[in-house]
This record gives sequence, structure tokens and C-alpha cells, in this order.
Amino acid sequence: MKTFFATYLSEVAKKVFLAIGTPEEEAETLSAELVLSNLLGIDSHGVVRIPQYVEEVKSGRVKPGAPIELAHENPTTAIVDCGWNFGIVAASRMTKLAYQKATTEGISCVVSRRCHHAGRIGAYVQNLANQGIFGLASANSSRHGHFVSPWGGMEGRLSTNPIAFGAPTSGDPVVMDMSTSTISEGKIRVTMMEGRSLPKGFILDSHGNPTTDPKDFYGPPRGTILPIGNSLGYKGFGLSLLVEVLGSAFAGVPVTPDGETDDYINGVCVIGIDPDAFSGKTAFLKVMDRLVEYVTSSQPAPTSQEVVMPGTYDFRTKEIREKKGIPVDEAIWSKIVDTAEHLGVPL
Amino acid sequence: MKTFFATYLSEVAKKVFLAIGTPEEEAETLSAELVLSNLLGIDSHGVVRIPQYVEEVKSGRVKPGAPIELAHENPTTAIVDCGWNFGIVAASRMTKLAYQKATTEGISCVVSRRCHHAGRIGAYVQNLANQGIFGLASANSSRHGHFVSPWGGMEGRLSTNPIAFGAPTSGDPVVMDMSTSTISEGKIRVTMMEGRSLPKGFILDSHGNPTTDPKDFYGPPRGTILPIGNSLGYKGFGLSLLVEVLGSAFAGVPVTPDGETDDYINGVCVIGIDPDAFSGKTAFLKVMDRLVEYVTSSQPAPTSQEVVMPGTYDFRTKEIREKKGIPVDEAIWSKIVDTAEHLGVPL
Repeated sequence: MKTFFATYLSEVAKKVFLAIGTPEEEAETLSAELVLSNLLGIDSHGVVRIPQYVEEVKSGRVKPGAPIELAHENPTTAIVDCGWNFGIVAASRMTKLAYQKATTEGISCVVSRRCHHAGRIGAYVQNLANQGIFGLASANSSRHGHFVSPWGGMEGRLSTNPIAFGAPTSGDPVVMDMSTSTISEGKIRVTMMEGRSLPKGFILDSHGNPTTDPKDFYGPPRGTILPIGNSLGYKGFGLSLLVEVLGSAFAGVPVTPDGETDDYINGVCVIGIDPDAFSGKTAFLKVMDRLVEYVTSSQPAPTSQEVVMPGTYDFRTKEIREKKGIPVDEAIWSKIVDTAEHLGVPL
Repeated sequence: MKTFFATYLSEVAKKVFLAIGTPEEEAETLSAELVLSNLLGIDSHGVVRIPQYVEEVKSGRVKPGAPIELAHENPTTAIVDCGWNFGIVAASRMTKLAYQKATTEGISCVVSRRCHHAGRIGAYVQNLANQGIFGLASANSSRHGHFVSPWGGMEGRLSTNPIAFGAPTSGDPVVMDMSTSTISEGKIRVTMMEGRSLPKGFILDSHGNPTTDPKDFYGPPRGTILPIGNSLGYKGFGLSLLVEVLGSAFAGVPVTPDGETDDYINGVCVIGIDPDAFSGKTAFLKVMDRLVEYVTSSQPAPTSQEVVMPGTYDFRTKEIREKKGIPVDEAIWSKIVDTAEHLGVPL
């Protein structure tokens, strides 16, 4: 494990993205968000993505600098054609638009077309919450990520379909960012490689029977991932469908199942709501602060040290990593170095 | 078990509500929604509520005919002061307002103050979806319903906090209506009375330890209900908090934990989004129809007969009950008869 300060990782990321032809401002947005994910401890969405995104640019699936345009606009709503620019760049623009519309109109909803991997959905609601706006965001994905079976089914029809919300408080915002499935494909792979079992209720084998052996997921033939909820999995399924509707139906794009390409595509939805269109920011923060106080005042269960709000652990990790640096896995770092060297970027 | 046709039950309900001083239009709204719940098979929110609501009126906690007023209004948003009228009447008005604002502005958000029991949250999104509008709705509750512990905690801090969405299709709308907790207090009671055990991961005893014995929930001292998700219960907790924010923070009312009374209160939020503010209704329906087709085309798992969308079973039940009548438990019916007789209402 190597350790780097955030400023250094940001510079590396920015230089790499510039070297592959990304405009300055876009490289800035990308590197800032990847490193913020690392700072928050969400390493799966951090600098580990640099080689992957560079690969996507090289193959032509991501087009740095491509125009991000309004396909349709109302005062409160918009469909943004992301033009296969970086998904993070596009979703950041969408969030800016959702912010502007929410502050002028009270509430807004912005959806995407042709959006590549949008990264950490929590980033967008956290951004809104930092500016005093309540945010709700979600992302569905194209068919090749359909590892999740619908409730009662045994064939993949849904992605991990994350949903996130962010609400301002006087302190750190409350930021929830959750997939509506039990586990990601990546984590099943890690579990298998480590020779461990999965918890009950996470996956089905290719015959549609429950199993805890990660090998049963890969087959072939392949099994499926279950929506969250165990015996109440119809709830996770329902939430996953909510993400499908928000990510596809407004934009008029059948991301699922008939995406225009087999490429990676996210159907992103960002909703912003301004407390000033209701009782005002002061009243909102007062209620939120009291809610945080009340909820976290619960005595912890024997298996737990304390009760925290969604996002609290992430903000604590950020404080530590800002001071002590960000640990990066050797193998991941060496891939980043390779990527940079191939582009002639000195680190 | 007795069986009645919907028209008869509606008449009974309406006559009872009229007899307790409810204005005609409100009695109409109330009886229609209660009987619709029965038709859909959601009997917990049907005519079983008649005696309860009458009791609430008698005690002065519900005020039939009380003005339902706008405490705050923007073109896209509103805070509705429900004035302790029937929650169902108030939430129906809120939904009408959310519909009007969504159709003119593209998107709307309406929240409540002083709203009594709002009944089945799915009713409101179903109503919007029937009119071609996507709906999202939720309801939190005052402290006396706080049976649900936060993730990692062992004291009740949340209610069952339902969330619902409705999306139009060319056929029946997709209607999801789910609590964010594993079970309701009422169902734990039934399980205990029947001498059965609960599934693992549903409740904690008063020491914060997992248990499947419903008696451990009642103690005393009392245990708690867990948010959905089992080992992923932080997700159910996060969703429950989303319902808290939507139900309290915009209205500026700390429904939780400092409600102005100990009475039953719901913090209701209704969001409407008009597909015509995006790609239009035709495109929306086309994507939805394809989504329904794709998702339900999954081969069923061995434990299942078929894959259906949320709401499908309810709509099937409605078709049957419209033809064959609504079964009503003898004990429930006799309570309704008693209630009617006390009010001098001939059945």
C-alpha cells in the first residue's frame, strides 16, 4: 500500500486526462471528483478509474471535450445530451443545471441521454447539499450490466441501480448513496478470489436457487444478484424500478433494454429542491439538526459502537486522509503509472 | 367472512362519515379511498379504518370539514396546513395540487402540516399515474409510532416510513408502495397471537439483540423493529431518513421527534413530474411499456410462478373483487355495524 496526498493525486489525474486530450476544465472536474471519492474512503470510485477512463477515451467510447447540450429544456426540467463526454463531467454539469433551476424555480429535475459512467451518484447530491439544496439522484445502466434479477425471477434484468439523497444540516450534510442490489459484481469476484462465502440472500445460481458460493454466480451459465431485502426483496426490486423510470422514461430513452449501443451508459436523474421554496433554509436546518440529534441519540445495539447518519463515516475518513494521505493499492498505483507513462506524462 | 360489493361498502362508509358531521365531498373522498384499498386487496387500509376514524372525530383529534389551507405557495411548491381534517381528505387535496402544479410547471412538490393519518400512500401516486403524471410520495409519523431503530441502534427513532411511486404505462400503472421497515407493529401482534415466529432480521429485543420471537418485541421493556435489508439494513435506514426529510424538513415541522401533540400525525410529501416537460407522454409510455415487457420476460425462479411489476397483484385482486365482492372479516364488520348503530345510521 502506498500513500499519497490528495493534491498530488489530483495533479496526476489532471495531467493524465490533459494528456489524452481533455480540456482543462473537464480534467479539473474529473480529477477533483475521483480524488474526493478517495478522500471519503470510496476507493472503488477514486483514482482506480483513471486507467479505465483513459482506455474508454482511446477506444473512442468516451469523447473528451464533446459538447454537452440541452436536448430539451423547461424552466424546471431538462434533458441533457451528454454526447459521450466523461460521465462525471456530464453529470456535474447536470447538477449545476439542477442547482440553478432549483434556486430559481423551487424544484428541478434533470435527466441524461448518452451519458457514460457517471461515477459516484452521491457526489451530485452532496454537491447540492453543500450549497443548501436537497438533492435526489439515481442512475440506471445499459444491458451489459444487468446482473440483477427482478423479484421472483432468475434472469438479469436490472443493474445495481444506485439511488442517493443529500440533505443539508448545520454540520456535514446527510448523504445516502446506496445500490438497490445486495452486492456488485466486482465484490462477488473479490469474495470468490478470497475463497469466502457470500451472506445468504445475495445471489441465485443459474437455476434460480439461492446460494452463498460466489462461483455459482459465474457458472457458466451465470447466476444473478438479488435486489436488497431478503424475504422482502420485492422492496429492493421496486426501488430498482424507480431508478429505471427516473433514468430512462423521462429522457425517452430505453436505456434498458434497448440502449443504442452496447457501450457503458448511465441513465442519470438529478432532482434538486430548494428549502427556500418552502419554510426557508433556517427552518430546514433546524429540523435537520434536531433529526440528527434525535436519531443518533439512540443507544447503540450490542454489535455496534454508535449510531451515525449516512455519510458520517465518509466525512471522518476524509478528515483523516486530508491529514495523513490516501492509501492506494500497489497494483492499482502501478496501473496508473503505466497509463501515465504510455501517455508520456512524467509523475 | 362476509362478502359485500364495493358500492354497498362505499354507501355504508359515506353514511357513517356524513352522520359524524363530515361534509358530503369529504365523505365521498374518504369512502372511495377506503373501498378502493379493499378492492386492491390492501385490507389494512380499507373499511377496517371506519371505526378508528369515527373514534378520532369523537375525541376531537380529527375535525371533519376543517379548512385545508395553503400555508405557503410557490408555482412549483406548497405547504398545506391540513387543519386536522381527515388525513385522506387532506392528502387527496395535496395530490390534486401536486397534479395541477406538475402539469403547468413540469414538476411539483407539496408537503403537509397538521395532517392526520393519510392512509395508503400508494393511493396518491396511483391517482397521479392514472392521470399520466409520475408520482413519488412518502409519509413519516410522530413519535408514538417510533418502533423502528436506526441502523446500529436499539431504541425506536423512526416509524415504518412508507415511500411510494407510481408511473403510467399503456396498461395499469406501475405502483410501488413499501414501508422502509421489515414489518409493522400490527403484523408482529398478529404473529404473536398466532404463536408463530418472525423471520430472522425483522426485530431486536429490548437488549438490542436479534430475535425471532414476537413476544420479545413487546417485553416490557419493548424491543424495536429493524429497517429493511438484514445485513444491509443501513440501506433501509437511509431510505427511512429520506422519508423523514421529505416529511418534516421542507414543512419546517419537527414531526419527529417534537410533534406539537402526541396525536397521530403524518408528514406527507407528494412529488409530481409531468412527462410532457421532458420527451412527452408518448415517449414515456413507450419506454415504460418496453421496460415492463423486458422485466417480466425473466424466467421465474423455482419458488415463483411469474415475474410481475409492483401493483400487478393488486390490480388483479381489484378485477376479481369488483365482480365477486370484497371479503370482510366478521369481527371487523361487527365493529363497523356497531359504529354505524351508535351514530343512528341504518345499514
